[in-house]
Amino acid sequence: MRELDPLLHSQLRLAIISLLLSVEEADFNYLKEKTEATSGNLSIQLDKLSNAGYIEIRKEIVGKKPRTSCRLTQKGRDALDVYVASLREYLGKVL
Amino acid sequence: MRELDPLLHSQLRLAIISLLLSVEEADFNYLKEKTEATSGNLSIQLDKLSNAGYIEIRKEIVGKKPRTSCRLTQKGRDALDVYVASLREYLGKVL
Repeated sequence: MRELDPLLHSQLRLAIISLLLSVEEADFNYLKEKTEATSGNLSIQLDKLSNAGYIEIRKEIVGKKPRTSCRLTQKGRDALDVYVASLREYLGKVL
Repeated sequence: MRELDPLLHSQLRLAIISLLLSVEEADFNYLKEKTEATSGNLSIQLDKLSNAGYIEIRKEIVGKKPRTSCRLTQKGRDALDVYVASLREYLGKVL
């Protein structure tokens, strides 16, 4: 059977990707609030997705505050398409 | 966001459930061949699914050989329905 991309087959990383699917970009606090993850864990998972090229992370200073924003890349979208196709292979009958 | 049932959100356990969805029952060797898992790992995951009541495991002697067969329970089907509904919440736009 097909491999399910381990980068996406994780509840928190899937939640992040899912949130980024519907917006141009999202900032760290928005992702934190929606996923209810801790800052530490969220940072780790964002870095993993970024290292894989699935998301882009931009850090900037707005006013005097640091702001971290994320957006899904084309590579991330492509990986998600493959993941969904694999899921269909597993769950085609009930999806 | 909804919890994805950790018992099902594992590649090998999902593969097992997926295989059991399409058959009345399946024996250990069939599952081993299809999933390409090791006997040890497959046994562990089958036990987890059985302890949760998601599958039933029957052991018998056929001829002089032991045979282990598994089938999905109603509880397993129900859990899968909930899991799929959660996945839709995550991936609704692309599923």
